Amino acid sequence: MLSSARMTNLIDGRAVATKVYAELREQIGNSKAHGATPGLAVLLVGDDPASRAYVRAKDKMCRELGLYSVKLELPATTTQRELLARVEELNRDDSIHGILVQSPPPKHIDEAAIVRALDPAKDVDGFHPVNVAKLVLGDGSGFVPCTPLGCLRLLRETGVGLAGANVVVLGRSMIVGKPMALLLMRKGIDATVTVAHSRTKNLPQLCARADVLIAAIGQPQFVSSDFVREGAVVIDVGINRVDDPGSERGYRLVGDIDFEAVAPIARAITPVPGGVGPMTISMLMANTIKACRQLTRH
Amino acid sequence: MLSSARMTNLIDGRAVATKVYAELREQIGNSKAHGATPGLAVLLVGDDPASRAYVRAKDKMCRELGLYSVKLELPATTTQRELLARVEELNRDDSIHGILVQSPPPKHIDEAAIVRALDPAKDVDGFHPVNVAKLVLGDGSGFVPCTPLGCLRLLRETGVGLAGANVVVLGRSMIVGKPMALLLMRKGIDATVTVAHSRTKNLPQLCARADVLIAAIGQPQFVSSDFVREGAVVIDVGINRVDDPGSERGYRLVGDIDFEAVAPIARAITPVPGGVGPMTISMLMANTIKACRQLTRH
Repeated sequence: MLSSARMTNLIDGRAVATKVYAELREQIGNSKAHGATPGLAVLLVGDDPASRAYVRAKDKMCRELGLYSVKLELPATTTQRELLARVEELNRDDSIHGILVQSPPPKHIDEAAIVRALDPAKDVDGFHPVNVAKLVLGDGSGFVPCTPLGCLRLLRETGVGLAGANVVVLGRSMIVGKPMALLLMRKGIDATVTVAHSRTKNLPQLCARADVLIAAIGQPQFVSSDFVREGAVVIDVGINRVDDPGSERGYRLVGDIDFEAVAPIARAITPVPGGVGPMTISMLMANTIKACRQLTRH
Repeated sequence: MLSSARMTNLIDGRAVATKVYAELREQIGNSKAHGATPGLAVLLVGDDPASRAYVRAKDKMCRELGLYSVKLELPATTTQRELLARVEELNRDDSIHGILVQSPPPKHIDEAAIVRALDPAKDVDGFHPVNVAKLVLGDGSGFVPCTPLGCLRLLRETGVGLAGANVVVLGRSMIVGKPMALLLMRKGIDATVTVAHSRTKNLPQLCARADVLIAAIGQPQFVSSDFVREGAVVIDVGINRVDDPGSERGYRLVGDIDFEAVAPIARAITPVPGGVGPMTISMLMANTIKACRQLTRH
């Protein structure tokens, strides 16, 4: 059980996502008033259960918000060429403003080539080279990957000042670490960003200097209290399964942060689950609405 | 006058560039043996004297190395459309492997659109979105901008260990700061990189924690000794003109580092001029040879 003292500094991702959805409903109403319904197409190749669950959740959220949703479930035997043909069709389809191919595809699919085939204006995951470059260039017309975008929104909600703040991003992946760092160092956000990783020397001390610590390394409960300065804001991107024979499923989800140890000293901290996780789909919806607005000029 | 104690820790950019040219001559010989002569085209629009000097220097170095060099000097009245047509011609020209448009073009030219029109495989300046994205993705087939590439080579020459080292990059420009940071955090280089800038809090203290400090802010002699830890390696990318009535030209060149103050405590330091400056053209030549190799598969 969490003590009430700890609960007060919790960053409630579900509550923030709910707030985001309220804002998005307004934007969707606006688009529809101009005759445009934002449309998202999600392509799933194969039958990985986790991927199917993600795709279902995205489809469900689209419907709840009144977005047009297309869910394409293709067999695991789909060839690269067939998948590319589907992407091309969706690129040309005026009712679709956002396209994503659920990751990971089967091994015979060249995922990077699929991403490059997307119309960058519909690449709501933000992984197309054009959007990666726009992020580096600080061009706001591009799409930023959903997870870093969700983390930024959570930081905004805490009221922490980011301009000039020392932010340590732990992890340098293409999906979270690097885009997170590039987003935070943008003009107008102006954080001082350090990207730390497995090869970093004196990692705990380096992290303990941060005003804001963002962990995205996929190591269960790796970040202990000696990584965190008293009063720091802590964002946990990790979602790791650890064995838990006592639970019904036989496992439980934990983040990259040792929550029990870190929560008492953090000014604010995201739990896992219920922190960054709920934000990601909300940012996908936000990117789809942005894509629709940019494509239809409403 | 520099004391001999100071001179021993000087990173001599001209000497390193000479070493690079020796390596490149070997690679060029190799390409020519396969029937391919690397070719570089430099487009200059207008008659800015500094730009003309840069273009001349690039052309001269091509000739010295035995590269094929095309120097296109276009009038300041050249339209965007005319310039794009020239770029297209060069994109199609099999004798040309590297193309660059000297910056800055006249104000009526949309420089970003010109860069996007370049064949990414010939974008030896490394500013095309495809190459920016490859840098983020860690794809070694892309082109890295010449100045950060030159800084990395200088660091290699000092023998400083970069894996895990704390590197502070001062400045977040698209030409130096951001690509420098992305390059150094790449897998295989593995530095822990912090990007600091004008909005950074406690800037001197933050810089003074660095094992390697790279200054690229364009502020004459901004970095004083309190920014530098004893034994740090210091790279000065700045080239600033300051008034000097005693000199023939009325000005002299200084870096972003207060050299006299910092040199006595640095393990190694680049002078200005004669540090990073000479490296930039050598890296442009290296990128052109790489482009030729990739395009002709030699």
